[in-house]
Amino acid sequence: MSNRYAYLGPEGTFTEAALRALMPTASTGDLVPCAGVDMVFAAVRRGEVDGGVVPLENSVEGGVPATTAELVGGDPLLIAAEVAVPVEFTLFAREGTTLADVKRVASHSHALAQCRGWLAANLPDAETFTVSSTAAAAQAVAEPGAPYDAAVSARIAGARYGLAPLVEGVGDRTEAATRFVYLRRPGALPEPTGADRTSLVAFLPEDHPGALVELLNQFAVRDVNLTRLESRPTGDGLGTYCFFMDADGHVAEARVGEALMGLRRVCEDVRFLGSYPRADADSDPTPFVPRAGTTNADFHEAEQWLTRIRSGIVD
Amino acid sequence: MSNRYAYLGPEGTFTEAALRALMPTASTGDLVPCAGVDMVFAAVRRGEVDGGVVPLENSVEGGVPATTAELVGGDPLLIAAEVAVPVEFTLFAREGTTLADVKRVASHSHALAQCRGWLAANLPDAETFTVSSTAAAAQAVAEPGAPYDAAVSARIAGARYGLAPLVEGVGDRTEAATRFVYLRRPGALPEPTGADRTSLVAFLPEDHPGALVELLNQFAVRDVNLTRLESRPTGDGLGTYCFFMDADGHVAEARVGEALMGLRRVCEDVRFLGSYPRADADSDPTPFVPRAGTTNADFHEAEQWLTRIRSGIVD
Amino acid sequence: MSNRYAYLGPEGTFTEAALRALMPTASTGDLVPCAGVDMVFAAVRRGEVDGGVVPLENSVEGGVPATTAELVGGDPLLIAAEVAVPVEFTLFAREGTTLADVKRVASHSHALAQCRGWLAANLPDAETFTVSSTAAAAQAVAEPGAPYDAAVSARIAGARYGLAPLVEGVGDRTEAATRFVYLRRPGALPEPTGADRTSLVAFLPEDHPGALVELLNQFAVRDVNLTRLESRPTGDGLGTYCFFMDADGHVAEARVGEALMGLRRVCEDVRFLGSYPRADADSDPTPFVPRAGTTNADFHEAEQWLTRIRSGIVD
Amino acid sequence: MSNRYAYLGPEGTFTEAALRALMPTASTGDLVPCAGVDMVFAAVRRGEVDGGVVPLENSVEGGVPATTAELVGGDPLLIAAEVAVPVEFTLFAREGTTLADVKRVASHSHALAQCRGWLAANLPDAETFTVSSTAAAAQAVAEPGAPYDAAVSARIAGARYGLAPLVEGVGDRTEAATRFVYLRRPGALPEPTGADRTSLVAFLPEDHPGALVELLNQFAVRDVNLTRLESRPTGDGLGTYCFFMDADGHVAEARVGEALMGLRRVCEDVRFLGSYPRADADSDPTPFVPRAGTTNADFHEAEQWLTRIRSGIVD
Repeated sequence: MSNRYAYLGPEGTFTEAALRALMPTASTGDLVPCAGVDMVFAAVRRGEVDGGVVPLENSVEGGVPATTAELVGGDPLLIAAEVAVPVEFTLFAREGTTLADVKRVASHSHALAQCRGWLAANLPDAETFTVSSTAAAAQAVAEPGAPYDAAVSARIAGARYGLAPLVEGVGDRTEAATRFVYLRRPGALPEPTGADRTSLVAFLPEDHPGALVELLNQFAVRDVNLTRLESRPTGDGLGTYCFFMDADGHVAEARVGEALMGLRRVCEDVRFLGSYPRADADSDPTPFVPRAGTTNADFHEAEQWLTRIRSGIVD
Repeated sequence: MSNRYAYLGPEGTFTEAALRALMPTASTGDLVPCAGVDMVFAAVRRGEVDGGVVPLENSVEGGVPATTAELVGGDPLLIAAEVAVPVEFTLFAREGTTLADVKRVASHSHALAQCRGWLAANLPDAETFTVSSTAAAAQAVAEPGAPYDAAVSARIAGARYGLAPLVEGVGDRTEAATRFVYLRRPGALPEPTGADRTSLVAFLPEDHPGALVELLNQFAVRDVNLTRLESRPTGDGLGTYCFFMDADGHVAEARVGEALMGLRRVCEDVRFLGSYPRADADSDPTPFVPRAGTTNADFHEAEQWLTRIRSGIVD
Repeated sequence: MSNRYAYLGPEGTFTEAALRALMPTASTGDLVPCAGVDMVFAAVRRGEVDGGVVPLENSVEGGVPATTAELVGGDPLLIAAEVAVPVEFTLFAREGTTLADVKRVASHSHALAQCRGWLAANLPDAETFTVSSTAAAAQAVAEPGAPYDAAVSARIAGARYGLAPLVEGVGDRTEAATRFVYLRRPGALPEPTGADRTSLVAFLPEDHPGALVELLNQFAVRDVNLTRLESRPTGDGLGTYCFFMDADGHVAEARVGEALMGLRRVCEDVRFLGSYPRADADSDPTPFVPRAGTTNADFHEAEQWLTRIRSGIVD
Repeated sequence: MSNRYAYLGPEGTFTEAALRALMPTASTGDLVPCAGVDMVFAAVRRGEVDGGVVPLENSVEGGVPATTAELVGGDPLLIAAEVAVPVEFTLFAREGTTLADVKRVASHSHALAQCRGWLAANLPDAETFTVSSTAAAAQAVAEPGAPYDAAVSARIAGARYGLAPLVEGVGDRTEAATRFVYLRRPGALPEPTGADRTSLVAFLPEDHPGALVELLNQFAVRDVNLTRLESRPTGDGLGTYCFFMDADGHVAEARVGEALMGLRRVCEDVRFLGSYPRADADSDPTPFVPRAGTTNADFHEAEQWLTRIRSGIVD
């Protein structure tokens, strides 16, 4: 029996594109579109699917609040993979529509924001309408008696809803990308690959100058590089924050493991979110080489030395 | 002639409530609702208004991406004031509607998310509809032939659109709050009050382990407390981040000034976003007392000492 | 058969007093005076004695170079105990001598330096002579046809050489003290007592700004307090230093052990010098309480947590 | 009228050699030998001489306690220059003496310690005698009816006392060197040369974990490299230390000045000991290049930026 995967729908979203990139052999029947990020989490938590894909952060908008909220709260899930998908927007319309016909454009608010420059220059008189997703916009345009003339959507949405591409690349930032993560219920972690990422949420013990420096020092002294650090309210009012962190490396590595133990000891709480292969590993030709003193072998040697000196053996 | 203020509209939003709290003497005619955060910034930048109010962060959702994007990019504006507004949701309907009549509820997606528990418990069969703001939901409910029976909105929206409150306090988190900031064009800063906040964006020089620790050390060695730290993509793709920071204190203070100079020297770039009175100063009965060695007097004494020893005067 | 102990002689030195404080049941026949610190080390290394006592640091003069040189180089020995002895100087003379008779005073150069004020005020016309130790001064005064009239020595020297105390407390600093250590060949360490000290020598990897901070951070992140830090030339010319360190705690403790492993990984070399009970433990009424997060139990809990998350178990 | 200089005598010491290297045009009549380091300080303090030369540290023995004690206490003097002198020991005897004749060798205790290997190998049966300086040993050997056959001394001592060199290079470590400093009363500092050193003593505020790291961070955040760090008892008993530090750079530089101000603010007390040209500047072919962000120009730019943002000017 094949695996089933939930994702942030409807069909034709960038999230579906991400899921297909992560699970290239999955058939359409195995993909379960959900109406919200929270519903993807719920489906995975309840075991209705084997895993789920949601957006984590966008190069233009930053973190996706709904995803971080679910990762921080609720029953824990683990990130088992990630993928970065270029955010390439296409203007879709029904067959036969020309650009001059377009008076009403629908899309997700973020998509409209990221295409504002193109729209102002090329469709200065068109009205824009915000709908719940870029795919919903395509779906709406495809319906008989559609209230909109065109949709700004992911390329994948065109085929799904039978629309014709009017213009490709209507986004203002060509390098925009969204990072998606694949979530599943707790269980065996992906094996270390040598180019991995570890995600976690740390809750600071108290609000005093230097508390955050102390926390980051737990990583720095073990030479663990942080690639992302984002404070988030804990939900207990303004002024109380937790820190969402991504670090280079796999928790199976000694240096990462010791850093996490250090964090565990100095924080109110630490929620481990997973260790998984980095999506940019392929594009990065230089493999990560830990600084002298931070390899597993260095940790092992130091442990053996500690065992010796604790027994009074010095040399 | 009175001052005019832009804000994230339409009328009846939490942002209007924030603006009224910040400018209690402003009359309704001086308030200019805008359709988006970017339009508030644009109105202030073009000088069409004296200042503008936008949401900066929410205790449940975190930072407001549209606001941070505008603060980081475009012509610089300065934050001159802040206010925290409790997020209290009210279920509004047309006069005569009872709870049992409510089948279709409209609101902003964030508001619906924050009332999900209440809605599931009290209106399990109602459909929810996402519109562009909580005020737009109220406005839509108020129209003749409205497609929705009720709106989840700010209290201020009820009077504005002639709706009756069905239930107050329908949010799942009673302590939720949103922090709003008042923006204006560059010019003289608010005077230090003794309980101030300084906001800025720092662009890290390169991606190496400990770079962030070095940056935070610039604050720690001057005993400047950071109250918020949020990494944001710079917009140049995933993996390149800038850091949005709030620190206790006013740039006019020596310790804050020196920390900012240090940041300026070690960062690719630093964008100063303003020094302004803390919104929570009233509720915090204990005035901030800088640690020994970090008062203006301490800095002044150290400067005089440096002048002396540079002249070879030691005692 | 009883144990035998070497010490920095001749008989009657402060070092003999220290040895008697450390080994109260040792008989005089078990104590082996040596002419130099290096000879004490040599006697212990060759197994001629069970252990040896040497001065490590003095509250007025600082570290004792001969001792640190021997600890850093040569076959390693371990410090197994320490004791602090008040440096109380007594002016001794032959029976019948009065203060007015004293024209020539002998002592060790350090002792003369520490009594300079008293000598200037009370024996302004006396000449001072430097001999190899305070005990040697007493010995010389006791000899027939002695070239000196009086000796500044430890109290213990008077009885040893049959001299009479002329004046007690002739030192200029009444709180002066010397810290002595008991050395023995490598072997089982003293058990942790809850108030211990760990000594070591660290060799920095290279000379770059912040290298020392990185090294000290290895202690700070594990909340291990350093009580002494002294740079010493490595002997390979000026500008190349090693760091002699004393830390609170026993290497058997998890926090100390992890700090030492960290040091081992980032340093060129680390020489462990021993973990042993603190001499000031009795005088310090408040037992050391590790900060939350640094007890053995905290380390154990964090290790168990790490084992769980490495297996994908999160809760 | 020519300048007069005190030094640690008697004539023929390594200190005299250092003084001649520092003041090559001084005539012998201008050099005032003193019997102790404290007397050199006293002569300078009383204005009897223009300046004085004393040993500061030795590559084998470490810091010279008498010098650091005088630098830390008493009326302040400033270090105005430094020089490193190779410690090359020569065995001197009266004309006509052969190595086989040498039964009794005199020298300073440190010199004997540093020649122990040579003496054991080449004069295994000779007795050694400790006198107050290597020059005093030469002087004693030169006297009629001398109690010693040979002296281990500096080369300069041979000519002074009319002795013949028996063997040159009898030290066990050929790379040994001593660093001497030239002291004068407070007054205009030497101009910055681009390769300078700054010396100071810092008194820590209290004994808590990380206090020393905080102190060193004051240097690290301004990228000021420490070349020497030595804890010394303050003289108020064991366990209370001050830190003797050498840093690269001149107090006239912005980065050094700001670091010293930071130190001044966080320490109980800081005693500035001088900024002066590094003795090893000539031998180091690569001029020091401050890291980006720490040049005087960087500090100046940051100050101008601070002035602008304090006026609300952002760009």
